[in-house]
Formats: sequence, C-alpha cells, structure tokens
Amino acid sequence: MRTTVGIIGAGPAGLLLARLLHNAGIDSVVLESRDREYVEHRQRAGILEQGTVDVLRAAGAGARMDREGLRHDGIELRYDRKRHRVDFPALTDGRSVMVYAQTEVCKDLIALQLAEGGPLLFEAEALAVEDPDSGSPRVRFRHEGREDVLECEYVVGCDGFWGVARTAVPAELTRVFERSYPFGWLGILADVPPSHDELVYARHDRGFALLSMRSPSVSRLYLQVPDGTDAEAWSDEEIWDELERRFETADGWKLDRGPITQKSVTPMRSYVHEPMRYGRLFLAGDAAHIVPPTGAKGLNLAVGDVVTFARALTHEKETGSAQLLDAYSETCLRRVWQAERFSYDMTTLLHRSPDATPFEDRLQLARLERIAGARSAETDLAEGYTGFPLD
Amino acid sequence: MRTTVGIIGAGPAGLLLARLLHNAGIDSVVLESRDREYVEHRQRAGILEQGTVDVLRAAGAGARMDREGLRHDGIELRYDRKRHRVDFPALTDGRSVMVYAQTEVCKDLIALQLAEGGPLLFEAEALAVEDPDSGSPRVRFRHEGREDVLECEYVVGCDGFWGVARTAVPAELTRVFERSYPFGWLGILADVPPSHDELVYARHDRGFALLSMRSPSVSRLYLQVPDGTDAEAWSDEEIWDELERRFETADGWKLDRGPITQKSVTPMRSYVHEPMRYGRLFLAGDAAHIVPPTGAKGLNLAVGDVVTFARALTHEKETGSAQLLDAYSETCLRRVWQAERFSYDMTTLLHRSPDATPFEDRLQLARLERIAGARSAETDLAEGYTGFPLD
Repeated sequence: MRTTVGIIGAGPAGLLLARLLHNAGIDSVVLESRDREYVEHRQRAGILEQGTVDVLRAAGAGARMDREGLRHDGIELRYDRKRHRVDFPALTDGRSVMVYAQTEVCKDLIALQLAEGGPLLFEAEALAVEDPDSGSPRVRFRHEGREDVLECEYVVGCDGFWGVARTAVPAELTRVFERSYPFGWLGILADVPPSHDELVYARHDRGFALLSMRSPSVSRLYLQVPDGTDAEAWSDEEIWDELERRFETADGWKLDRGPITQKSVTPMRSYVHEPMRYGRLFLAGDAAHIVPPTGAKGLNLAVGDVVTFARALTHEKETGSAQLLDAYSETCLRRVWQAERFSYDMTTLLHRSPDATPFEDRLQLARLERIAGARSAETDLAEGYTGFPLD
Repeated sequence: MRTTVGIIGAGPAGLLLARLLHNAGIDSVVLESRDREYVEHRQRAGILEQGTVDVLRAAGAGARMDREGLRHDGIELRYDRKRHRVDFPALTDGRSVMVYAQTEVCKDLIALQLAEGGPLLFEAEALAVEDPDSGSPRVRFRHEGREDVLECEYVVGCDGFWGVARTAVPAELTRVFERSYPFGWLGILADVPPSHDELVYARHDRGFALLSMRSPSVSRLYLQVPDGTDAEAWSDEEIWDELERRFETADGWKLDRGPITQKSVTPMRSYVHEPMRYGRLFLAGDAAHIVPPTGAKGLNLAVGDVVTFARALTHEKETGSAQLLDAYSETCLRRVWQAERFSYDMTTLLHRSPDATPFEDRLQLARLERIAGARSAETDLAEGYTGFPLD
C-alpha cells in the first residue's frame, strides 16, 4: 500500500487531518487499531474552542455540530459559597466555546471520510514507523490477521500517548517534560437535565467539582478524587451527596439528581514530548502532549497540530518550500506550552492538593478573588479558555 | 504617660501613622527600640507604589521625594536572552512607581515628626502590650534605663516581624499562614551609575537577578543565592561575573561595574497573621505580614495598613461609629492577600528552585511569553506592580 500521508490513529486528530488533506487534494490512509464501534463511543472531552469550531465548519464537518452543539458564552466559578460568571464574548471580542462531545466529532468525521475520503482502516494496528528520517517512511501494521506495509511520503502519528509513533523518535533527540498530580477525576454521566446552563467550576476545601453537560437532558459531572480511586468504591448516592457539598452556594442553588449511567476515573497528567517532528514523521495530539482536563484543551490542541501540519504540507505542495514543515514542531510547541500553562493554572487554581498548606489555600482564594475582581485577570482566563490563536 | 494612640516602632509604618494622626488632630506617641542613626540608615525597600506616593504627598511628606525620587514608568523582564518592557502608564491608565529608598522616607518623616508632631522616643524598647482587649490598653516599655507605661486608647503595633505587639494576640484566636523559599537574595550597593534606566528582572537558568538603583550614581543589584549563603563567601568579582551572566541579552547589552560598598543576604518568606486586630490592638506592616521582596510590596502594604487605620479612627472620632475600626482586619487582609499572591507569583515566575523540574522551567518561560505577548496578562502584572487600590 502506498499513499502521500500515512495517518496513525482515527481519533479526532487523525480523522480531521484526513479531512483537511482530502479538501486540499492530498491523499492519505488512516490506520486505526480499534473497531468503529469503539472509536465512536469512547467518552472524552466535550468543549470545542472557537478556533476548533471554525476549523470544523471550514472543513465541511460542522453541520450537525451547529444543529446539536450548545454554544456557551461563559463559565461559572464557585468558591467560598460565592458565584462568579466569566463572560467570554464581553472579554474576548465575541469569542465563545461549543459544548459538543468528542465522540460526536468523531462520528461526523468518520461518516464524511467513508463517504468522500481516502481509505480508513479499522482494526489496523500500527506496529512500527520505519525509516522516519528517510525520504520514504513506512508504517508496518497488522490488519485482518496479516502484516502489511504502508509506504508514505509523510507519516503523522495521531495515535495517542500509548501509540507507537512517538517511540520512533530516537531517545537521544528527545526531551520529555512531565508532571503528575496526586488526584484524578471521578466522572459520571447522568440522565438529568444539567442544573446550570453553563459549566460550573467549583473550588472547595473538600476538592474540586465540575458541572458539565452532554446535551439538554444529559449531565456530565466530575469530582476530584485521590489518585488511584476505584470508581466502583463510590455509590451513586455518595457521589450526589459529595457533588452537592462542593457546589454549595450562599443563595440556595440546587443540584438536581438523576440515574447515573456511567462512572469512571481519569488520571491527571501534564506531558510534552519535544520535538514533535523527526524527519518525515510528525506527532500530533496526545501522541506528543497531554494536559490535565481542567482547561478543556486536549482535543483543541490536537486540532491545532493537524491544522498546522495540513497548512504546512499544502504550502510545500504548492510552492515547493518545506519552510512551514520544518517549522512544524516549533510552531505547535508555542501553542502547546501556552495550553500546558493554562491547564496547569486552572488545575492548581481549583483542585485541593492533599498536602496543601493553609498558605496555599488562601493563595487559591486570592487568585479567584483577583479573577472575579479585575478585568485584566479575568480576560487572561477567558482568552485562555476560548483558545489561543492558530497562527 | 498617656496618649490616644500608642505606636510601637518608628519604621515607615509607625512614622507615617503618627503623621497621618497628627494631620487629623489625633495625638500619638511613637516608641522605637533603636536609636535614630540606626533607623535612618538601615537598607530596605526602594519602590513606592503610585498609592504610596499619593499618600506621602497628601501627608505633606513628599517634598524631597518629588525632588530626588526617580519616577519609573516601567520595568524590563529578561528571559532566554530576550528583553521585554512592561509599560505601566500605558497599561494602567497612567500609573507609575517611584524609586525612593525607605530610609529616605524615614528620614523625611522623622524630621517632620520632631519638628511638628507628638513625642517620638528613640531607644524606647516596648516590652509588652497589656490588656489589649480592654478599653485602656497599655504599652510597657524601657527608656533611659527605667521601665515606664504608656496608657492609650489604641495601640498600633508597627514593630515588625520580631516585635512584641503580635505576641499580645492570644494564640487560640490566631491563624498563621507561611511559606519559606529555598533561596535568598545577595544584595549589593555599588558606586556606579545603573546600567539601565529602569529595573531589570531577569529569569535565568542559573537563577534570578535584579538590577535596581538608589540614585543616578548608585546601583542596587541582587542575585538569587541558596538559602543560608554567607555574603562574604562571594568576592566582588564573582558577584559581577554572575550578574553579567544572568542579565545576558542577545543584543549585546553591557553591565557596568563599580566599587561594591555594601553586601548582604536577605532571606525570602511569605507570612500572614490573622486577624490583624485584637481588641484595641492593631497590627500594621511587617508585624502582621511578610512578603518576599520580588514584588516590592512590603513597604507599600505597611502604608496601606496605617492609612486604613488612620481613616477608621478619624471616622470614629468624627461620627462615633466604630464600623471602620471593626472592619480594619478584613479591609487590610483583602489587600494583603492580593499582595501575597502577587509577590508569590513574581517570585515563582523568576526564581529557579533548586528542585525545579524541566516541566516547571518550561512553564516559567511560557508564563513570561504570555506576559510579553498578551495585553491582558501584561496588564495584570502592571496593575499588581503599581499597586492595589487603597479603599
């Protein structure tokens, strides 16, 4: 098998890249180790930045998102029983975000790819990227019980943190930046209309809580829990009781309960792999970087990476200049580090570390008071949340 | 001896308070354990916020400051061999800071107090604050070889971190918030014109450095050094060499050297004592809170405290209402915690922790890039630096 761009992974990064390349007249093949059912149903992020929304629309993949997605013009911060709304459009010249689940983005892109795009192979497990620093890199993969080779001009690794693409970058050229957090998120899906029409981020002495939603009738809620927590150790009632405590306000706001349909624990990690390119192998999304979910940046960063790659390759095809491709890693990493910073700051602003000192607790409250009281600090947050520019 | 307000400590807080009360027609006595020579020559801070400048002028203590002080409209940040200027007036509606040493403020206030004000006793060591929760608190002190008692309506402890005032607040009513840092500042005074006309804050892999000045012919420079460093362990040449490395730029900027006339090491600490009031005893300045010097907030916070007290007491004398006095601690602490936050952030932005991970190093650079690249983040810093409002 032979193609221009071999794409490993049919998550949002790989699928969107295939779409962008298709629209630019560049052929690609997507290899995905899981089956379609799995890919279309794994629960992931749900907040699309303004720039991501714009990209999906421009790529012709925004129709259902525009019908079913929920445009959000703000978030609410809770601390010390107080409520403060951050008004995105007022602070950022009209920018907002869209609540539309990653799984839905994937379904839309898969449907488009199968209808109009190049090959998308499910249950095709990439085994290795070979000769990435040569003019003709290859992806060795297993599909329908036998090994095959995809010969490419370029390989883009969109295969996530556990994928094989990153391991093809020689260790001596690699720098890794990491941070783990001593807590995770216990997340639930519940069949109950969300108790607030925007996301609520709560800082509480007992830990962080987040109220989010998948649709007008399905709530998505999260509790900060100690690292290593087993989701099954929490009964439904315990979860609702704890959520109620952490969302507490002075004005008697109420949290509505409903049947919990899914429960899981997500660990929290910050991770960056530098560089994001080695020869003709390019890393995108979680293959190169992880952020804790507090800033809702993971999916949006992946979109930024593949837009940068598609632009750079289109430029190369049109002008013969590899300048943008050569700058890929540096261009992406500028945005990645801003998102890492923002995600770290949102995380440390709102979570309670098990070893937090009283001084650090007060510092958190002072930061929240600053955001609530100073337009500069609030704008800084709103700009970060709605997204750093794709340039 | 009897007075309305007994003031312990003739640092800038105590001296300014005596002046403010004098202007309001309220009598006070200032007790200072050291002699005048010592008080007028101890090297301390040198940056006055806009609000502090305004207060000193309004108090009739700004004449020499306005002649000899240096108005600064910005600071320079250095990192990664880059330079970025933060323009205060452009970001904060015209606010700026004044470089005028704390010792000079003290000299001016002492001269005014001795010429026009109430008693100011040097070498009068406060031994204890007695019955602070009664209607007539007393300060027991030793002066000219014998013990005496100052009977007051109110006592204000402006006697610094090591003073006796704070110890009069019962431990069971007290909460202490603290953080220490694993580094300090090696500070020098040098007879050489400053190599830059504004302060330069440098983040370097080898540690923080600060270029400041006392006058157009005297430089004040600082190096981050490990906690517990002996200033004498550094030769003059080693200090200049290290400063040169940390201020390095890509554009060939030069650091001018000159004779070092003073060398000392300052430890770094964050500290807050809550509440700042117990009965008729009020704590002000370093007696209640310490900030690391990176944000230049210590002196300015002390000014905020005594302005708050003078206003509150004047209000009580004029209206009979103790409402503002009762709110003293809460009013001050709002500003104190914003300054603690700002000082902590400036410190962690620019210093290199001995156990810093590569991730944290990159985070620092991302923060600096954000400040240099986004008006919101830069405004947040400029507002913090020029000072939080006195209200």
